[in-house]
Amino acid sequence: MANSPFITLALDAMGGDQAPLSVIEGAYLALKQNPSLRFILVGDRNQLDPILVDFPDVQSVSDIIHTEDYIKNEDKPSIALRQGRQSSMRLAVNAVAEGKADAVVSAGNTGAYMAIAKFVLKTMVGISRPAIVASFPTTKGSCVMLDLGANVSCDSDNLVEFAVMGDIYARDVMGMENPTIALLNVGAEEMKGSAEVQTAAAKLRLAKRTLNFQGFIEGDRIIEGEADVVVTDGFSGNIALKASEGMATFMTNLLRESIHSSFLSKLGGLLISRPLRRMKDRMNPKLHNGAMLIGLGGIAIKSHGGADGVAYANAIKVATQMVSHGLQKQIEDKLHALSLDLQEGNDEDTDNNQQNS
Amino acid sequence: MANSPFITLALDAMGGDQAPLSVIEGAYLALKQNPSLRFILVGDRNQLDPILVDFPDVQSVSDIIHTEDYIKNEDKPSIALRQGRQSSMRLAVNAVAEGKADAVVSAGNTGAYMAIAKFVLKTMVGISRPAIVASFPTTKGSCVMLDLGANVSCDSDNLVEFAVMGDIYARDVMGMENPTIALLNVGAEEMKGSAEVQTAAAKLRLAKRTLNFQGFIEGDRIIEGEADVVVTDGFSGNIALKASEGMATFMTNLLRESIHSSFLSKLGGLLISRPLRRMKDRMNPKLHNGAMLIGLGGIAIKSHGGADGVAYANAIKVATQMVSHGLQKQIEDKLHALSLDLQEGNDEDTDNNQQNS
Repeated sequence: MANSPFITLALDAMGGDQAPLSVIEGAYLALKQNPSLRFILVGDRNQLDPILVDFPDVQSVSDIIHTEDYIKNEDKPSIALRQGRQSSMRLAVNAVAEGKADAVVSAGNTGAYMAIAKFVLKTMVGISRPAIVASFPTTKGSCVMLDLGANVSCDSDNLVEFAVMGDIYARDVMGMENPTIALLNVGAEEMKGSAEVQTAAAKLRLAKRTLNFQGFIEGDRIIEGEADVVVTDGFSGNIALKASEGMATFMTNLLRESIHSSFLSKLGGLLISRPLRRMKDRMNPKLHNGAMLIGLGGIAIKSHGGADGVAYANAIKVATQMVSHGLQKQIEDKLHALSLDLQEGNDEDTDNNQQNS
Repeated sequence: MANSPFITLALDAMGGDQAPLSVIEGAYLALKQNPSLRFILVGDRNQLDPILVDFPDVQSVSDIIHTEDYIKNEDKPSIALRQGRQSSMRLAVNAVAEGKADAVVSAGNTGAYMAIAKFVLKTMVGISRPAIVASFPTTKGSCVMLDLGANVSCDSDNLVEFAVMGDIYARDVMGMENPTIALLNVGAEEMKGSAEVQTAAAKLRLAKRTLNFQGFIEGDRIIEGEADVVVTDGFSGNIALKASEGMATFMTNLLRESIHSSFLSKLGGLLISRPLRRMKDRMNPKLHNGAMLIGLGGIAIKSHGGADGVAYANAIKVATQMVSHGLQKQIEDKLHALSLDLQEGNDEDTDNNQQNS
């Protein structure tokens, strides 16, 4: 497959609110941009065939894996994992594990998808735990943050691995050059963070040839764009993300109340409605789109559940990018470079100790 | 002192941007409301005396502890602790430890104040670690949150102690009846939080006669007012707080940009300026005022650095409330009730196990 001129993607054709139509539309749009794509559509042939009649281009480059079973949005991940062995999602993920596809895309139940992807694909070589990664708008553009909730507690090695994966994600998916990396930490003098954060920082400082580590970042500086990649454990990352979302909703509601408080303020609201919409556009899609599990033994991209054809095509594009850029290989190489950095750092320490003694 | 009809407060007269004038003004305003107050003004007599001439009421109920040394805003806490032994802040805290005052109030350097208060006052009986507590606006009114950064890692017993202190703070300082208590946690199904959070929840469930524990809360629900008291470790608490503040600043800036983007939008901005100001008023003071260290062996209240006389009088009021309500005693009593709950819970478990076996 590595030498094939084609990139083959397994698509969970039944996952997502507008599936299977949005999936096939997405495949069509992605194929127009990139003719080297090939698809494995996993889903109910009786639903897929009538749609494919209208998309002969997609049909001609697609195989179908037929199943009538699929994971519902309200299914619990643990149940989905045990009882969904013939579901479209599970079979699509299996296609990657079996080497039939280079990556899998699903717009289905997020929790179930993560559970299944972790179980089937395991983690990639050198990574002990996958992390949820996503990008966010900042005052300077955007930043990448991980882990957003896959691991509630992390040791320093996990955090260092997240830094490597975040670096590659920032370069490959976000197109950042030499992204700066920071560890999320608390700011007051008395408490410079947990032992895990301290040890991770010490290791990352040794890796300066491999990673552009700039130190700690406080919670209020993330959105300032003070770092390109923000690394943290899944507990703090989830809470930072959710607290920000909560505040954003709260302020939007307060603003709405302010505008609706009188006739004049309603008129005022009307006059700023256009720039406000721009503001909203800037905030929303990035906050909620494109969270993915990185560090798996295969590439699994999540498109959000409400994705239409255009959004789904975008998820396919991300998957394609990751395959063609050799994301997994890049992470492996960087992990190797990092281990050399750390080895050298330790050797230098030993040398220094010997000189001192 | 417990039987005295007076409440004696040690005031760090040199701490805060507008000290010592704001401190004496604050004392004056507080005294007008509560004639049973007595003050120990700690600071430079040469600066205090000329001001006190204009405030004879304050002068007549105050003693002065003279010192010319004070902690500067830029002093590091560790330095302040070692080198500030004759500072106004340290001597004011000492007055509580020595039984000369019922509580201390300072508007000086927050980090230094916490370090000094922790060192001098130690923790109260039954509390292993003090926590930073503050109240925040929510859509329903306000909530209390702790720990906001005093302890980067906490075990389940720490979290349970925080719940007790938060409950008493919510009742006493915020005037809430039977406040609901929740543990901050991540939301996805796979990971219901760390072992510490799980164990703390199990203990709090056993304490239902003593605390109104309602379970877990996610980061985005804090501001919804889903719980009256949000309990978490200092790392997550600090990050939730800072991330929210960062988002609030970000959105305020975006809104400002939106308003300044054209002539019409500027006019619109003008029309909503009054309700917007109300919105701002609702957000700001509560977010930044009144964070305090709870669980110390004495009552130490922090007034914010830029406090004027009115704000300082408010900090004095909080200190007075805590003294007159017997906050320390209430926390002790509740801790005792809790330990009985837990004991009974364990006994029941044992009974159940015996029945089962």
